[in-house]
Amino acid sequence: MKRRDFFRNAAFTAAGAAVLSPFESIAGGRHSAVAHSADKRAKNIIFMVSDGMSIGTLSMANMLSERRDGKLSTWMSLYHAGTVQRGLMDTASANSLVTDSSAASSAWGGGVRVNNGVLNVAPDGSKPTPILQKFKAAGKAVGCVTTVPITHATPAGFCVNNDSRSAQAEIALTYHDLRFDVMMGGGTEFFSADKRDDKVDVFGKFATSGFQVAKTRDELLAIDAGGKDAPILGVFHQDGLPYALDREHDETLKKETPSLAEMVGTAIRHLKKNRNGFVLQVEGGKVDWAAHANDVGALLYDQLAFEEALATAIAFAEADGDTLVIVTTDHGNANPGLFGGTKNFERIIDFKHTNDWVLQGIDRDFTARQVIERIEHAQGIVIKADEAIRLLSHYVTDRNEDGLYNPYKLPFAEFAEIQQRYTAVSWASTGHSGDHVEIAAYGAGQGLLKPFVRNTDMHYLMLEVTGVSKG
Amino acid sequence: MKRRDFFRNAAFTAAGAAVLSPFESIAGGRHSAVAHSADKRAKNIIFMVSDGMSIGTLSMANMLSERRDGKLSTWMSLYHAGTVQRGLMDTASANSLVTDSSAASSAWGGGVRVNNGVLNVAPDGSKPTPILQKFKAAGKAVGCVTTVPITHATPAGFCVNNDSRSAQAEIALTYHDLRFDVMMGGGTEFFSADKRDDKVDVFGKFATSGFQVAKTRDELLAIDAGGKDAPILGVFHQDGLPYALDREHDETLKKETPSLAEMVGTAIRHLKKNRNGFVLQVEGGKVDWAAHANDVGALLYDQLAFEEALATAIAFAEADGDTLVIVTTDHGNANPGLFGGTKNFERIIDFKHTNDWVLQGIDRDFTARQVIERIEHAQGIVIKADEAIRLLSHYVTDRNEDGLYNPYKLPFAEFAEIQQRYTAVSWASTGHSGDHVEIAAYGAGQGLLKPFVRNTDMHYLMLEVTGVSKG
Repeated sequence: MKRRDFFRNAAFTAAGAAVLSPFESIAGGRHSAVAHSADKRAKNIIFMVSDGMSIGTLSMANMLSERRDGKLSTWMSLYHAGTVQRGLMDTASANSLVTDSSAASSAWGGGVRVNNGVLNVAPDGSKPTPILQKFKAAGKAVGCVTTVPITHATPAGFCVNNDSRSAQAEIALTYHDLRFDVMMGGGTEFFSADKRDDKVDVFGKFATSGFQVAKTRDELLAIDAGGKDAPILGVFHQDGLPYALDREHDETLKKETPSLAEMVGTAIRHLKKNRNGFVLQVEGGKVDWAAHANDVGALLYDQLAFEEALATAIAFAEADGDTLVIVTTDHGNANPGLFGGTKNFERIIDFKHTNDWVLQGIDRDFTARQVIERIEHAQGIVIKADEAIRLLSHYVTDRNEDGLYNPYKLPFAEFAEIQQRYTAVSWASTGHSGDHVEIAAYGAGQGLLKPFVRNTDMHYLMLEVTGVSKG
Repeated sequence: MKRRDFFRNAAFTAAGAAVLSPFESIAGGRHSAVAHSADKRAKNIIFMVSDGMSIGTLSMANMLSERRDGKLSTWMSLYHAGTVQRGLMDTASANSLVTDSSAASSAWGGGVRVNNGVLNVAPDGSKPTPILQKFKAAGKAVGCVTTVPITHATPAGFCVNNDSRSAQAEIALTYHDLRFDVMMGGGTEFFSADKRDDKVDVFGKFATSGFQVAKTRDELLAIDAGGKDAPILGVFHQDGLPYALDREHDETLKKETPSLAEMVGTAIRHLKKNRNGFVLQVEGGKVDWAAHANDVGALLYDQLAFEEALATAIAFAEADGDTLVIVTTDHGNANPGLFGGTKNFERIIDFKHTNDWVLQGIDRDFTARQVIERIEHAQGIVIKADEAIRLLSHYVTDRNEDGLYNPYKLPFAEFAEIQQRYTAVSWASTGHSGDHVEIAAYGAGQGLLKPFVRNTDMHYLMLEVTGVSKG
């Protein structure tokens, strides 16, 4: 089929969507379908991770984009334009077919599979050098941007060796010593003297060492406008940054915290000044948190926010010509899917707030009527009285959900089960899956990506495409 | 990365598996990594559908292959060898983001999206000509092979126009008049005079019209050995054929019914005699049924049996050079995933029988002890007494599961929920999902497959790659 025929045949009339690439606005024209040379070297790498993204997440974000905006999602637009190399990735860790984020990021970051929970410490005790340390030693500018604490597993796996992903307070100090060019995300509690157990003022240490430090979106914009060469630390929120959906509908959050795309834009402008090139990891970390919570609004709007950041990276790579963008996830999570009618799914278009926002705002003094009204306000769904009572029961009795991603033991799974009757989205679990996952490469050297890879292969691909030694 | 480096880096030592392509034995050597020409025409097409295959199904079948046999699954071997073109496919129907199999097959078969439940009758009432009728008119040999009734939705979508997929008795008669070269699968009840409502002897009609008719594996082997040109009708079982796992452990079933790979082998040998080429649809139809039943043993072993048939098709295409193999699914189903430990998952290696076999064999006179023993015999899992009682309760009270794929209302979902504690496999639903799905092309003209397609695009791709007009 000729390219023109393909586009004609693929006109998404039934889905109510014209097929417009989001890059038509970003880059001033449609991508050319010409493949990038397979053996070309890349000067820069932008490695993008939508953490915990099952294929259903990618698919439903595209459906939401089509039905809300009349266009394919950024990720699917890249596929549709035929300009990327695609693969499936085996995500296993050293000790399990189902990885956690620290072992997954270590596989990319250190080139060795480690046990779950560990950052670049192999089962034999050896400590592979994390890839951003290698790139910094090779003269490149390096950094990480995420929507969860910057000390969290996925950025940490590119940066440090540590026996435990939980050592986030220690990792904040390690980051200070590493002196990477850009580190941005959440996690104030690991940088503020008044929140750390050891009362060390880590923000102060960074500032004293010459970093430009931003704690709000305005401070970040000022740093961006200033254009100084000093490294940037941006820590914008306790714990993770707000979910994109909640941020979108809260003027205070929009003013105080940057979007992922805004952080990526600033990071790229800062890093590209290095004439030896740069390597940047970008994580949509709360896609994973939303999947753990079976929180469909949080999940899909954070996925779209991640893809907005992807569009920023692709636009840069297209203009630059020497940049490889890799986009993937570290593992599936919860394997959500749409299992029913289109009309049900379309309710999500009108969501204003996440399940997290809904449940955080309920307390044991709520009436059933108040629960119903809160959900209707947030999501346009009117649940039944007995469903409201089911939710309320979790606030007045012992709470029995737990785990790393639900410290307040809110009834996320119960709410998802109720919500499923209205949205037709359901979930196989509240944990990570062992599925092989989507991976794609765009730009210089994209041809190096093979159709089936192990997570560790990506470590060597990044070194090879930049011509940096494996040492 | 050079190809050699890739293979070295990708050695699956942690997963306990050497990376051996199954084609090393089939074709006497490893595939070359040389891509087939993008613009080459194909004389033959083998269109392979693992019905209702979520990405978790594909992934877990590969994990099972690695851990049981020490090698990648056939499908992942193709990816690993880098010899295929991959895409993601949007599977929506005319009236829903979540398709059924008839609308999905009609999209491929007729090039138009139709409503769920319908075979090649568009919402406006028009009736696109099914693709195997087009190919037959163009002089090619055509046929379908499946593990479910040959009159079922997926083969029917390539063959007929009908307002309802349920009209299987009528579709059997339509097949007689179409006189396609090979039609094989299950569905005796639509061909036997004593089982049809209208008492028509459809088997007899086929025989009288000169078809070679096989009702057992031996009869099929004899037809294969005979090598006659007359068209073949093979109907080997009431309803669907046995699940691959149950067949493997039942000498009678192995003798009476062919495997999907055996049927495909016979079909190819028969069809390839046509000097104008052939088009064959192959369906692993019970992958979908197993997903509806959340039956993990049925699912994964039928997926592997489908991939055994895929290996047969690929071996032919590799030797032939003029054949395009397309391998995909029509939609996700149940979005299963592995959500826990490797040891749990490895229990599936020792399964001898499906949940279907287990549950079909229980009746209300069973004791809990007998239920426990039956499951231990079939799957090596010793469930608890209260779990056995939960299962038994479905046999003594009203049965409340229902639907197209569970006519006897057996407690499939309950068993899956119990089993999940032992296998760590869980499921998001018992129905189809709207996920975008995996599609790949191997052989002549594979370059025509784009990275993101609608299901309808495949209709035009098949016509274009063979040079057959769209009329």
